[in-house]
Amino acid sequence: MVWQVYTIIFELAIMNENMNPSSTGTEPEIIIIGGGIIGLVLTIGLLRVGVKVKVYEQAQGFREIGAGIAFTANAIRCMNLIDQSIPVALRSSGSVATSNGGAEDPDDYLRWIDGYDRHREDPRKQRLFYKLSAGPRGFEGCRRDQFLESLVKCIPPNVVELKKRLDTIEDRGEGQKLLVRFTDGTTAEADAVIGCDGVKSRVRQILLGEDHPASRPSYSHCMAYRTLIPMAQAKEALGEYKATNQHNHIGPNANLLHYPVANNTMMNAVAFVRDPNKWPDDSQTVAVGTKDEVRAAFQGWCAPVRDLIERFPDTMSKWAIFDLWEYPVPYYNNDRLCLAGDAAHATSPHHGAGAGQGIEDALCLTTLMREVVTECRAHPEAKAKALTAAFRAYNQVRRTRSQWLVNSSRRVCDLHQQAEWADDAKLTKAESVFEEMKDRTFKIWHFDYEGMVAETLQGFRQRMGWANGIAKTTQIY
Amino acid sequence: MVWQVYTIIFELAIMNENMNPSSTGTEPEIIIIGGGIIGLVLTIGLLRVGVKVKVYEQAQGFREIGAGIAFTANAIRCMNLIDQSIPVALRSSGSVATSNGGAEDPDDYLRWIDGYDRHREDPRKQRLFYKLSAGPRGFEGCRRDQFLESLVKCIPPNVVELKKRLDTIEDRGEGQKLLVRFTDGTTAEADAVIGCDGVKSRVRQILLGEDHPASRPSYSHCMAYRTLIPMAQAKEALGEYKATNQHNHIGPNANLLHYPVANNTMMNAVAFVRDPNKWPDDSQTVAVGTKDEVRAAFQGWCAPVRDLIERFPDTMSKWAIFDLWEYPVPYYNNDRLCLAGDAAHATSPHHGAGAGQGIEDALCLTTLMREVVTECRAHPEAKAKALTAAFRAYNQVRRTRSQWLVNSSRRVCDLHQQAEWADDAKLTKAESVFEEMKDRTFKIWHFDYEGMVAETLQGFRQRMGWANGIAKTTQIY
Repeated sequence: MVWQVYTIIFELAIMNENMNPSSTGTEPEIIIIGGGIIGLVLTIGLLRVGVKVKVYEQAQGFREIGAGIAFTANAIRCMNLIDQSIPVALRSSGSVATSNGGAEDPDDYLRWIDGYDRHREDPRKQRLFYKLSAGPRGFEGCRRDQFLESLVKCIPPNVVELKKRLDTIEDRGEGQKLLVRFTDGTTAEADAVIGCDGVKSRVRQILLGEDHPASRPSYSHCMAYRTLIPMAQAKEALGEYKATNQHNHIGPNANLLHYPVANNTMMNAVAFVRDPNKWPDDSQTVAVGTKDEVRAAFQGWCAPVRDLIERFPDTMSKWAIFDLWEYPVPYYNNDRLCLAGDAAHATSPHHGAGAGQGIEDALCLTTLMREVVTECRAHPEAKAKALTAAFRAYNQVRRTRSQWLVNSSRRVCDLHQQAEWADDAKLTKAESVFEEMKDRTFKIWHFDYEGMVAETLQGFRQRMGWANGIAKTTQIY
Repeated sequence: MVWQVYTIIFELAIMNENMNPSSTGTEPEIIIIGGGIIGLVLTIGLLRVGVKVKVYEQAQGFREIGAGIAFTANAIRCMNLIDQSIPVALRSSGSVATSNGGAEDPDDYLRWIDGYDRHREDPRKQRLFYKLSAGPRGFEGCRRDQFLESLVKCIPPNVVELKKRLDTIEDRGEGQKLLVRFTDGTTAEADAVIGCDGVKSRVRQILLGEDHPASRPSYSHCMAYRTLIPMAQAKEALGEYKATNQHNHIGPNANLLHYPVANNTMMNAVAFVRDPNKWPDDSQTVAVGTKDEVRAAFQGWCAPVRDLIERFPDTMSKWAIFDLWEYPVPYYNNDRLCLAGDAAHATSPHHGAGAGQGIEDALCLTTLMREVVTECRAHPEAKAKALTAAFRAYNQVRRTRSQWLVNSSRRVCDLHQQAEWADDAKLTKAESVFEEMKDRTFKIWHFDYEGMVAETLQGFRQRMGWANGIAKTTQIY
């Protein structure tokens, strides 16, 4: 047991010393499709362990949709294992803790607060239902575009090519590299392709077939209205403490989440609203939303919430939340293709943990590719076998947890928005969900990533025939 | 930290040495309403720590409804801390492990197997979806009536009175004992009353008021058809292995659970069937069910399941499952009244963990009453304060977890019976629930009962003003 722990620590230490080994000509060549946060984090990791990487991004430049993003302390520790430059990039992009309790209470919290009208004597008061401490710097939030910009600086020139939209991937048989075709008619070759191309992933379509139901995400019947509100205005509505600290106001069929950004000068506010209707156009998931729509969804809520909504702009972005809950991806790998991040397990955002899962994917793949590089040096002819074994081990390790998150995000949305919040006779029942909320949140925050690294290595070695072990198979009797 | 652990171990050790202290005349007198398994286990615990206990049971004799009951290894360890005679009683009542893997595989498992027809080439084969190991002797099952009989033997004569149905409890004010009235006109007095009187608890009605919605359990819209099948017949339907080991066959709107009992001569089989209708009569929750009803519910299921159902008797017991999910009890204590077991948190049986929660309650109350006895010896005038503080600490420690179980039991029933099991296109989604199933099961199995004992003691001491500490209060701002 102790020996195993030391082995893991030793292997992590090797990873951190193994940066930028000089090329031997035997290293695997991998194409990453998609230059978002997960694509670039993975690129940094694979370059460090000696893989030859090219990234193709369809956009004209680096851009991340969505204003802010927050990472748990655990996700940041995973980043550090992938490469120490990544948390440095995060912090240099201006990440800050999401709470402002000051020296007296430096922890970051998730707080669930009664957003529905309880007819209190003082209509501006709200009851705090529950809070969970994530410890000091338990979350660090930043602007997505700024983090991406910092990540780009960690990557050598010519690794990333923009304006390249993936068309097809051709497997030309054993001993041959994969042929990747772009929609502009150009091509590229690689030993393997990893799709980090997001919720509408083209690599996923190629891996599963276009007719597979998981090739397209489906509508979660929840919309998010997002806006930034000047902090002075937010304080008028909510008061100093609520405005400057994360709160999730919950109630029937909707919830309102906010936290401070931009060095406490602005509040990032997101109103999640249940939508029983079909979303009209799957190819266009962002539309213009109006303040009147938000007002209608929060009718009957308490005064501070309604006052905050009055400070929303007249129009704002309305995001239809699509995910892979309805039809999860049955396997994340096929031969020399593989999916990571949202391409594999696009989730609704209710845990705020989608990107963190992608970081865990990247740590798993970086761990594996270090092994593949070592194997290729000793046995260049075993490259395809090693890549396939690595992707199989990755699928085995990552699929269960990341698909759990997709389910769990839907579930916590249901709990946030249960009708019981509006029914005084059902309030004891409604509040009894917080034990489950805690368990789900802790499963995300307290992930044993060192255990994952160990399991990943064991899975790869078993598949390479280096160790005894029975692969998990379907049991029919 | 280490010091704390030693303190706990020391306190547990004291508990085990503190049996049957001689009476000092200062000890609290407690009435337990209900002589079921939890009532008697608690009685044994309270007697051991020096409480003067009387138990009143409305029935003519000791009886437990339901054929079998199984306890986890964890629940048995809790029994051992309450009193070492309790696991001895369990084992002397003929408890056996619920699996029969033999020397090669001695662990007990929960197994979820595909019960719905998948049109396999061999229609008798079924796919094992998932299994969880509980370790060797992970569960021990026995007949309820036999365990109860063994428990009675651990209790001195004249402690339990039968044919006493509780009518009212009168609080005659400070310094006075509670006056307990029975429906036969007799009365009894005590310093406190603990209701272990099950799902239809009268103590709960008295504690909350008869009009409170939690004073009556509600229908879970699931029925259980229960029967025993001779093992030879069960093997004809399922084959040797499936018949002699626990399996839960899952599918749309129903599931079929079975495990061997009576030294492997019989199979205990329970068919759970979703019921969209209202249950006609809340006072009569057991009715006669027919084989035709079960056949209809499992139409379209695989051949082994249908063959097993053909071996059900033509009529059998049909149980309407009632629980406290819809309206949970808002507090388990009020002054000198308190609820434990099903009276506090009646649950549906889908985790098979309802009785185990009652055992945890009994451990918590036994821990507290040892403190109360000690306090009363030193300060006889503080008896009422100490009892009230104990019940408050109990409510604080036990309510969250036990109500989580009520929710979780409903949730796993929904997962067992999801429509997706019958839809090949949704099978990946359906199977993605097992990570959640594992987490929920492990939360039950791996409960930190030593941590609970420590938290219980701390809560009591804080409420008695023996230690600094801020009680958890509702936060409004």
